[in-house]
Amino acid sequence: MKHVAFGGRLVMLGFGSIGQGVMPLILRHIDMPRENITIVSGDPRGQDIAAEYGIPFTVLPLTRDNYRDVLTPLLGAGDFLLNLSVDVSSVALIAFARERGALYLDTCIEPWAGGYTDPSLTPSQRSNYALRESALALAGEPGPTAVLTHGANPGLVSHFVKRALLHIARDTGVETDVPATRAGWAALSRGLGVKVIHIAERDTQLASMPKQPGEFVNTWSIDGFVGEGCQPSELGWGTHEKVMPPDARRHEFGCDAAIYLLRPGAGTRVRTWTPLAGPLHGFLVTHNESISIADYYSVVEAGTVQYRPTVHYAYHPCDDAVLSVHELAGCNWRQQPTQRLMMDEIVSGIDELGVLLMGHAKGAYWYGSRLSIEQARALAPHNNATSLQVTAAVLGGLVWAIENPRAGAVEADHLDHERVLAVAEPYLGDMAGAYSDWTPLLDRGLLFPEAVDASCPWQFGNFRVG
Amino acid sequence: MKHVAFGGRLVMLGFGSIGQGVMPLILRHIDMPRENITIVSGDPRGQDIAAEYGIPFTVLPLTRDNYRDVLTPLLGAGDFLLNLSVDVSSVALIAFARERGALYLDTCIEPWAGGYTDPSLTPSQRSNYALRESALALAGEPGPTAVLTHGANPGLVSHFVKRALLHIARDTGVETDVPATRAGWAALSRGLGVKVIHIAERDTQLASMPKQPGEFVNTWSIDGFVGEGCQPSELGWGTHEKVMPPDARRHEFGCDAAIYLLRPGAGTRVRTWTPLAGPLHGFLVTHNESISIADYYSVVEAGTVQYRPTVHYAYHPCDDAVLSVHELAGCNWRQQPTQRLMMDEIVSGIDELGVLLMGHAKGAYWYGSRLSIEQARALAPHNNATSLQVTAAVLGGLVWAIENPRAGAVEADHLDHERVLAVAEPYLGDMAGAYSDWTPLLDRGLLFPEAVDASCPWQFGNFRVG
Ligand SMILES: NC(=O)c1ccc[n+]([C@@H]2O[C@H](COP(=O)([O-])OP(=O)(O)OC[C@H]3O[C@@H](n4cnc5c(N)ncnc54)[C@H](O)[C@@H]3O)[C@@H](O)[C@H]2O)c1
Ligand SMILES: NC(=O)c1ccc[n+]([C@@H]2O[C@H](COP(=O)([O-])OP(=O)(O)OC[C@H]3O[C@@H](n4cnc5c(N)ncnc54)[C@H](O)[C@@H]3O)[C@@H](O)[C@H]2O)c1
Repeated sequence: MKHVAFGGRLVMLGFGSIGQGVMPLILRHIDMPRENITIVSGDPRGQDIAAEYGIPFTVLPLTRDNYRDVLTPLLGAGDFLLNLSVDVSSVALIAFARERGALYLDTCIEPWAGGYTDPSLTPSQRSNYALRESALALAGEPGPTAVLTHGANPGLVSHFVKRALLHIARDTGVETDVPATRAGWAALSRGLGVKVIHIAERDTQLASMPKQPGEFVNTWSIDGFVGEGCQPSELGWGTHEKVMPPDARRHEFGCDAAIYLLRPGAGTRVRTWTPLAGPLHGFLVTHNESISIADYYSVVEAGTVQYRPTVHYAYHPCDDAVLSVHELAGCNWRQQPTQRLMMDEIVSGIDELGVLLMGHAKGAYWYGSRLSIEQARALAPHNNATSLQVTAAVLGGLVWAIENPRAGAVEADHLDHERVLAVAEPYLGDMAGAYSDWTPLLDRGLLFPEAVDASCPWQFGNFRVG
Repeated sequence: MKHVAFGGRLVMLGFGSIGQGVMPLILRHIDMPRENITIVSGDPRGQDIAAEYGIPFTVLPLTRDNYRDVLTPLLGAGDFLLNLSVDVSSVALIAFARERGALYLDTCIEPWAGGYTDPSLTPSQRSNYALRESALALAGEPGPTAVLTHGANPGLVSHFVKRALLHIARDTGVETDVPATRAGWAALSRGLGVKVIHIAERDTQLASMPKQPGEFVNTWSIDGFVGEGCQPSELGWGTHEKVMPPDARRHEFGCDAAIYLLRPGAGTRVRTWTPLAGPLHGFLVTHNESISIADYYSVVEAGTVQYRPTVHYAYHPCDDAVLSVHELAGCNWRQQPTQRLMMDEIVSGIDELGVLLMGHAKGAYWYGSRLSIEQARALAPHNNATSLQVTAAVLGGLVWAIENPRAGAVEADHLDHERVLAVAEPYLGDMAGAYSDWTPLLDRGLLFPEAVDASCPWQFGNFRVG
């Protein structure tokens, strides 16, 4: 079924796990001549798949110096730049696309190569907060639509939060319309008493071959994960928090919705919960949604923040990635010499990806997608469970952008969540919601004394693994 | 080749990975009628292997109430109680064996079931320090030999330390005889300037089947590893240390050679190094050798400790066990419902187990055994690389005990290291020694400020992963 027709050209930049996985969805659901699509990528990976679909494929890594020359002949007014690359500055591309009058979508605000781990930059400058501020500096003015960071997370999870808030309202007897404004959504979240939102993900995909020493294995971009894992841990910082972590810092510019820790996210563990996995430790890796959601749901009155939830990622990647992170930490974050993006060798597992809203009348509510590898394979070629959650979201964002071509630069929180989910949902497996009386104080202090704040389970210090 | 003849009866208590693995070595190297051997175990595991060797096998879990009745008919003067069980009090068995005039050997000082995680005990009472003190209370007096904790580690590694000290002396131009007394060994270590000793182990064994959610997988006793992993982290505490960790405590009784941390060892990571793996993070799990080696090498003059090395385990178990520990921590140390001891499904890997002596004139020196799964399988049936390092040590300890039947209760450090190694070494694969300029300060503070003591790399605070 075609969701929308598109008359322009589409340049796909990068053809890794997400590019390869989204291609069949685009061909299936966007009504456009296939001749209008072209791929520019940094390496030949996926060339066979492009050939299978008859899409021209150019290997040409973009740099600060060549990106304008490479892209100018490919992109004009009404065309689309779909950026699914790593190591190419999203901000440069967003500005360029606007200049050309082209639509734009990415799934991550990437810096130029090396930007995540440039020791000449301060941790604040290497943060997603700084990357987001530099992208948002391009927002505000009207212009061709640029959808920022619209994958699964960041991306879909912003829409899950909205559904989850409506579910909690329904289930706790709070009457509400579907809010139509940012202020309306923030007021709803505040009224429900939501204090903390985790992006709580447990990827249980397992492969037939074990991870080898010196190999980083993951179900999506290894470079992407290592990059963000080495950035400072970042979280939207809620108004209910009583104590700033000793290693936390505020940025000295921008929206101030988030703090960062003076440590890499892949070295920072937090307690979280998902319905299928139960209690678990996830990594507090920085993500754009931690900041954008905290910002979107802030209630500011008379210049002071009256309400904001704490928002962060709590990511249990696939087991082989947990091991890869352990090995990476052991080498003080010097990336392993080899990498493997798990695809055909996956034998079982589910990506259980959702939002966990805590502190309201019913305690904790998880809402999200459970997609198994078997479901993913039945739904679309060239995907695993993780990539399909992302590529479905990319498709949803593409459709929304084509339908709303003059929205300027926007984050997921500003999109029509039901429209996007209508496009993505057929690819998300089972959408599930579950309440829980789990708190991070469960089973604590049994064998050893632990410094917890028992008066408020939802304090960040209670979630953090010391 | 038979190393020694034994005329008594031998009762093997427990027939898990170590019991099953040591049986072929005993039959091969100890000259005794096979009819004199009997197995008493807590479950039927290994019954087929016992049958293969024609050894009677009784399933009868020992308890506080029945152990005397069960063992009395089986053990008299000149017999041998080889304790390779979990969940049976070693101290009760040592006292009982002495009472009966029987020899004794174990590989771990076990408490009765539940003792490692009994929340009614203080962390100090649940420590290996306390278990060791209760066992040493039986030492001193002459009596039948009881070899305490003589596996690979605790056990063999004490002998590796002696060899390593002699190698460092040779390579740094320090003239020394082979010391003949405890005081002589301690003086040698002090004279060489050894400040820290890690038991630095990297087990790279991989299986053909991945770990499943809810399953604890390891290359040796899962109950044993979970038990010790949930005990407080413990380390021999050296005289060069400037700062007590904030979560460290001293015991208020006993030799005072060690401290404990108010946290489980399986939740405590330290930086270490092995020649094949390079820099890595290991778990600071408590072990008897951390205390016994620190105690053995202490130089006490006029009632005050003049010299003692910091000694602790830095264990990187097989990857599936790292994942199992991660999952266990995520559930706040509630043990997973299923377990799998990896054996025939192992497809590759090496157990690289040695001692890393640091702070001397040549920096760091690792000395130990590198045994691959292929070597282990070629050397003996019913073993993997990990178990064979243990069972070879058990064999060495058995031979020494039979040759020295009136030594009373002794730890590995008190045995003749060359005699034991002569027996064990044919099963240890490649014995390797390697110097390194690695320190825990390597590559630190590149991306984030880190609180290190740059004036002395060998401070515990530099090793610990915060
Ligand atoms: N929001 C989400 O949910 C989500 C999920 C997964 C991935 N992502 C993001 O999507 C992006 C792609 O992820 P992936 O898993 O496909 O990554 P991948 O590592 O599989 O592929 C990256 C692609 O970028 C290309 N590339 C690298 N350098 C380039 C350059 N200089 N010029 C042009 N192309 C270059 C590579 O050739 C490759 O095709 C990453 O930014 C990642 O963080 C977002
Ligand atoms: N020092 C070392 O290097 C080293 C290395 C590995 C294991 N170990 C120790 O060796 C011991 C055995 O290890 P494993 O890997 O063979 O363990 P395992 O879990 O494979 O087997 C344990 C055995 O103990 C038996 N058992 C349990 N409860 C019992 C009871 N109440 N009465 C009698 N038997 C009982 C079980 O039936 C089983 O046969 C453990 O204490 C472990 O910590 C020491």
